[in-house]
Amino acid sequence: MTVTTETKTDVRTATRVRLFTPGPVEIPARILRALSQIPPHHRTEVFRATFKRVTEAMRELHRTQGEMFLLGASGTGAMEAAVVNLLQAEDQALVIVGGKFGERWMNLLKAFGITHEPLMVEWGHGVDPAEVERRLNANPKITAVFSTHSETSTGSIHDIQSIARLTRPRNVRLVVDAITSLGVHPLPQDEWGVDVIVCGSQKGLMIPPGLASLSLAPWAANAMDHEGLPRFYFDLRRFRKSAPQGETPWTPPVSLILALEEALTMIREEGLENVHLRHRRLALATRAGAQALGYRLFAAQPSHALTALYPPDGVEGAAVVKRLREVHAIVVAGGQDHLKGKILRVGHMGAYDLGDVLTVIGALEECAAALGRPARGGADAAIQAWSAA
Amino acid sequence: MTVTTETKTDVRTATRVRLFTPGPVEIPARILRALSQIPPHHRTEVFRATFKRVTEAMRELHRTQGEMFLLGASGTGAMEAAVVNLLQAEDQALVIVGGKFGERWMNLLKAFGITHEPLMVEWGHGVDPAEVERRLNANPKITAVFSTHSETSTGSIHDIQSIARLTRPRNVRLVVDAITSLGVHPLPQDEWGVDVIVCGSQKGLMIPPGLASLSLAPWAANAMDHEGLPRFYFDLRRFRKSAPQGETPWTPPVSLILALEEALTMIREEGLENVHLRHRRLALATRAGAQALGYRLFAAQPSHALTALYPPDGVEGAAVVKRLREVHAIVVAGGQDHLKGKILRVGHMGAYDLGDVLTVIGALEECAAALGRPARGGADAAIQAWSAA
Repeated sequence: MTVTTETKTDVRTATRVRLFTPGPVEIPARILRALSQIPPHHRTEVFRATFKRVTEAMRELHRTQGEMFLLGASGTGAMEAAVVNLLQAEDQALVIVGGKFGERWMNLLKAFGITHEPLMVEWGHGVDPAEVERRLNANPKITAVFSTHSETSTGSIHDIQSIARLTRPRNVRLVVDAITSLGVHPLPQDEWGVDVIVCGSQKGLMIPPGLASLSLAPWAANAMDHEGLPRFYFDLRRFRKSAPQGETPWTPPVSLILALEEALTMIREEGLENVHLRHRRLALATRAGAQALGYRLFAAQPSHALTALYPPDGVEGAAVVKRLREVHAIVVAGGQDHLKGKILRVGHMGAYDLGDVLTVIGALEECAAALGRPARGGADAAIQAWSAA
Repeated sequence: MTVTTETKTDVRTATRVRLFTPGPVEIPARILRALSQIPPHHRTEVFRATFKRVTEAMRELHRTQGEMFLLGASGTGAMEAAVVNLLQAEDQALVIVGGKFGERWMNLLKAFGITHEPLMVEWGHGVDPAEVERRLNANPKITAVFSTHSETSTGSIHDIQSIARLTRPRNVRLVVDAITSLGVHPLPQDEWGVDVIVCGSQKGLMIPPGLASLSLAPWAANAMDHEGLPRFYFDLRRFRKSAPQGETPWTPPVSLILALEEALTMIREEGLENVHLRHRRLALATRAGAQALGYRLFAAQPSHALTALYPPDGVEGAAVVKRLREVHAIVVAGGQDHLKGKILRVGHMGAYDLGDVLTVIGALEECAAALGRPARGGADAAIQAWSAA
């Protein structure tokens, strides 16, 4: 290919594609290796033992003495499992909606005919727990609260601990989508009082998509012992029945469970508190580096899983996303709905470190310059924020 | 380890574990390699192009001009998708039940409150199409027939072509579970007139479990255009909307889709007719070899996906299953329900060849001898049957 003087800076210079997406995330080599091993049959002692170990390690990761269900589905499948197993037709729900994934709870409740009231939160903001309290007091018929923890569409976080302080004493079920927060932010299920946590595999758990989890707190064990809504593939009563044998009612995604075991080993080796601290440092470094270059934070209460950014003044968000892909081979996500084309969302959950932050900050600096807003000092600011955190 | 004279024949002599299970099956090395590659993000052009190619290749494999849906789930998830998308509360179904997987259709219909009548078939037998005709004539309110093609619990096969000749002229929907027949037995969807075919990934498609498919024949395109039953994760209307972009409404199991592309390439390289012929020869060779050793066929109308066998007279089925695992490192399945402990089910779908049949026949011969029913000539019979087929 001939490179002319005019276009040489637009030529792709990266030697490999890097994902800085808010999931699926980069898969560590150890996990790719786990995926390529010859998997055992799921009805063998060797797999049953693996399945039990993985289930136990997931309970440990959730800090729960309750039950852990592993489902062959994306995270949305686990969200559906929560709705169809916990609720009955006469239940009423409060739904915290501050982005696309809060909306997903609402759409699920709508699809299954559950009466619900949305608590709309401005995108990028965390919900005000006092408002949750007002809603719960105003409508004592509410039996369940559905919330996102880290809202992937906006890069913001909701204060689940404060919400749980309101739901637990009222015996209202709290169901939390922790799809982009598990392994990123602390979320000790039993200590905080969260009835149900759902998660997916392709985020903080670092493995490919296709495996989802649902954990049920010990005090909520009987929450699904009713006919309730029609359910089959996601009927957790069937999963509960086969769990003691290390089995699932339907063939589990064996290769993903082997990958998950490797991921959980990696998390245990690093230590969960260190993993949470590292994500905090990754987030602070990314924010500081990007802000030093003229990018602005979108979220008022930012998550540590991803950083949502407005581009420098006068630059299109979509242009940055495009240039990151084409020149730097860096894949980030753009905005959704009314934020389409306006923001970029930089994921940093999973096996990322300071070097990765510097990679993306270096590319953001080049993009700012190429798109007419040159700035310097992003990498330095990132390093300082990392060191101070 | 000290090997005493008394136990030396019970020592494991195999150098590796081999799966002869009726799914998940052995995964070819090419597919393991596909699983270990660094996967692209699903919202990139490279993945969208892959997704479209895989969808197209699956349509080709089904011999349909209709729509193909790929779901992040086990095959049971695709069965649920068929029920919740096609049926409405007032529909009535006829269900052909000749084993565990026919029962699964029945349990699904029950879970979703659909009026249905079972057509019970003796395990191991194919349904009599004349009986299907009688039922359809007797109850004109039946709007859908649910059937298994290859019944994995018994190793038998139903004559789908004859059933489709009854359903198509009556505008009754025919929904077929082809989980252990796709890529094994011919099932040309449009030519035969099958409205819906569901499949899973870990059988004839040779990849790990976690990906399921549902194909909708062209004349049935409007079959799911109604509110019908509550659905969300499996709502095919959402999949239909995102399909033209090469996308899915929820994050797809990316790594399994890469693996599926490799599997479909392997099938195309061999040629689908050759793949079907090879499975026929595998089945005939397995039956002949086992019968020469005193094992008896369980199925009256046997499938080419697996061979269900009674052990030689006086031997426990469970003892053969156990010895195959412990001495030969060969994993086969036992019987289910009233057949538990009585039969063994030897899978040979996927990338198996004559050498694999000889491996399992050799082990069956050793088992027969060790369990008190010595016999010879199994391998020879298998080779002759293979050659004659």
